Amino acid sequence: MNKEIGPIEDLIKKLNRLPGIGSKTAQRLAYYIIGLDENEVKNLSEAIISAKKNTVECSICMNYADSDPCEICSDKTRDDSIICVVEGPKDVEAMERSLSFRGKYHVLHGVISPLKGKTPEDVKVKELINRVEKGNIKEIIVATNPTVDGDATATYIKNALKDFDIIISRIGYGLPVGGDLEFYDEITIQTAMENRRRLD
Amino acid sequence: MNKEIGPIEDLIKKLNRLPGIGSKTAQRLAYYIIGLDENEVKNLSEAIISAKKNTVECSICMNYADSDPCEICSDKTRDDSIICVVEGPKDVEAMERSLSFRGKYHVLHGVISPLKGKTPEDVKVKELINRVEKGNIKEIIVATNPTVDGDATATYIKNALKDFDIIISRIGYGLPVGGDLEFYDEITIQTAMENRRRLD
Repeated sequence: MNKEIGPIEDLIKKLNRLPGIGSKTAQRLAYYIIGLDENEVKNLSEAIISAKKNTVECSICMNYADSDPCEICSDKTRDDSIICVVEGPKDVEAMERSLSFRGKYHVLHGVISPLKGKTPEDVKVKELINRVEKGNIKEIIVATNPTVDGDATATYIKNALKDFDIIISRIGYGLPVGGDLEFYDEITIQTAMENRRRLD
Repeated sequence: MNKEIGPIEDLIKKLNRLPGIGSKTAQRLAYYIIGLDENEVKNLSEAIISAKKNTVECSICMNYADSDPCEICSDKTRDDSIICVVEGPKDVEAMERSLSFRGKYHVLHGVISPLKGKTPEDVKVKELINRVEKGNIKEIIVATNPTVDGDATATYIKNALKDFDIIISRIGYGLPVGGDLEFYDEITIQTAMENRRRLD
């Protein structure tokens, strides 16, 4: 009794495999796409191919980019001696939006997570060590997420780089700006208390 | 300071235009797509083109289909004399899943909504009237959604077909099966009370 037709069903299935797209959303999207005019559909389809085809991994920082080395790695005005290590490309964007960092990045493309079977080989830690070996690095700021896996990855990186004469720091923990104390968990509040700073 | 790169940004923008896809989801999807292997990306891109290209509007019921007339309209075992009028293709699927209807459908592709500037010309009402004019129809069940616009559309259809000797009915209103009385609004409960049926 399934009256769903071939090509639509196929598209729904493929959309459904994307992260965060449930079957209802996939269905809504598929019918929306079919309702678009032919040109818009072609544009969307080509944008998908083009994004994949024209995106490379920067051989220095491992971030997705349209050139290698990427714009940030090529930027002579940025400090080469500080590397901010993040989990993914989105984190680079968030960091750039914050305008709080003018060094270089290193994108791990994931975190080490023994529970999910992600070992150090599954993330770009080796590439980070290679960068440090080449010298000129003074500080590594590990800005992986404040999660169990993010912390484990930070610890792994710290140990992996312990023989180098560099500062390895972890991004600050605490309450997010605009957050409301009553909504945060005990660990966040404890950490925020430990990380208190004297007002002067 | 926008470090987002060309083709990725373009894909994010295009995904962001899809219904229910906010900028965060669009970003997540774009990076996910870039992380897929080339073949999967090609498949997704082609599925979009194929769904659009191989889908036609059935010239009888206006539903999306891969043949014209569609499978349901061609089905000789279904009752030609009852037409269930729905807002969109998804409603046909929901109805078919319920196994509660063995007649034919008519897909309006929208509802009449003066507030949103949707007039009767924007939905497939004319095509419905044409079908009725050809004769052989005994009943029209208007199964547009139980909303202000859905009701307005039902009323419009009833008036448009008042000169024909056919029954025009509206799908039953009431509490959804499995629903919990305390969570429904007054209007739903009032309607459910009015629509009560004697148990026998």
